[in-house]
Amino acid sequence: MNKRLNVTQHNTRPDKKAIVLLSGGLDSATVLAKALAEGYECYALAFDYGQRHRAELVAAERIAQSMGAKAFKVIKLDLSSIGGSALTDMAIDVPDAGGSGIPVTYVPARNTVFLSIALGWAEVVDARSIHIGVNAVDYSGYPDCRPDFVAAFERLANVATKAGIEGHTLHIATPLIDLSKAEIIQLGTSLGVDYALTVSCYKADNDGLACGRCDSCHLRKEGFAQANVADPTAYKETS
Amino acid sequence: MNKRLNVTQHNTRPDKKAIVLLSGGLDSATVLAKALAEGYECYALAFDYGQRHRAELVAAERIAQSMGAKAFKVIKLDLSSIGGSALTDMAIDVPDAGGSGIPVTYVPARNTVFLSIALGWAEVVDARSIHIGVNAVDYSGYPDCRPDFVAAFERLANVATKAGIEGHTLHIATPLIDLSKAEIIQLGTSLGVDYALTVSCYKADNDGLACGRCDSCHLRKEGFAQANVADPTAYKETS
Repeated sequence: MNKRLNVTQHNTRPDKKAIVLLSGGLDSATVLAKALAEGYECYALAFDYGQRHRAELVAAERIAQSMGAKAFKVIKLDLSSIGGSALTDMAIDVPDAGGSGIPVTYVPARNTVFLSIALGWAEVVDARSIHIGVNAVDYSGYPDCRPDFVAAFERLANVATKAGIEGHTLHIATPLIDLSKAEIIQLGTSLGVDYALTVSCYKADNDGLACGRCDSCHLRKEGFAQANVADPTAYKETS
Repeated sequence: MNKRLNVTQHNTRPDKKAIVLLSGGLDSATVLAKALAEGYECYALAFDYGQRHRAELVAAERIAQSMGAKAFKVIKLDLSSIGGSALTDMAIDVPDAGGSGIPVTYVPARNTVFLSIALGWAEVVDARSIHIGVNAVDYSGYPDCRPDFVAAFERLANVATKAGIEGHTLHIATPLIDLSKAEIIQLGTSLGVDYALTVSCYKADNDGLACGRCDSCHLRKEGFAQANVADPTAYKETS
């Protein structure tokens, strides 16, 4: 799909073009569905950042294609060499659910890095918004999922770019920011998202089967239960 | 040198640890020299982002080692797949010096991306400052070299991180921001920087020989002349 990007898009107005961060998980699939429903031409962006759960990337591409994103791109970025997180450092175990404070699965500055690269792509395709699936549940533990962070990044984006200098406004859209996991699932279901395509598990195997035990699996299971929506997740037999 | 990073540093106070963005060029070598002179333990960070001038990376490692950085790290990041700049897109020619406005050598959101990754490393090693060689000369053409940009990134850094949440302040140091190229060269010379180790040319060959014609060569040549310092740059014979 990357080849399409070589063609400059003249037909779509910049304010109707969006970069959508797509992880392959439940939240970002919902964000993509909402942006498409709002009429945005969507440029879906995923990252190969040395994460344990590489089934995410396969899921992200499947989601982008099946939902009709204009383009899908994976950026390789070796954050594992920085270390510091259970998601990229094989020496740190991913814990089961529970615990308080900033979790060990927090990847230092991850959303800052992802949004920055999205900003670069937004400049190239002349998109005026970046859509990201941060939400109230993540807010509890990750510094870079808070509304303050998003507001600070938006201010940065508007001084960091050509478009900003030329007087255009770049918007960071966070449609899930105030939603619980159950509300996200209800929103996505109403928009026709097929959550069977998504992978949330931090320990998913190569087939995308979920462990059913990590923080991410726990939140997802609870979300489907509270939303009264059948959980389509495929779990490993041992869980 | 990367292996040293696996050892957590307990001896140095976080406010005396610095991430230094090191490109292999003249400016960032001066920044590293200044940070070292001020007593910082320096973690030098370079990027392999698909740039044309790969001799930069060789130069960056040489500079980090010879000056005595605590660690040196190269992060691979494929910005060329985003395109949009003559520095990463082989279909766009690097122009000779001259012209006005934002140059085609501008890499979309480059400094935002670099500072974001530096922020991640700062979290991991618990450093409280990031030093970057943006300056008055770059200011004229690149949006992400302006003081407004740096201030916005610093505000972001202080809400984006664990350290920020815990009440610590992260500082973005831009010691060259108000200096001309000649003043930078005078500063570095007074600090003992060996500029023969640095590579500025956008079209440098694998041996680090400079073209003598691009914007970057032009600024560098002029800087040495105005600073009354002998230019140690090795140019290609054709230039």
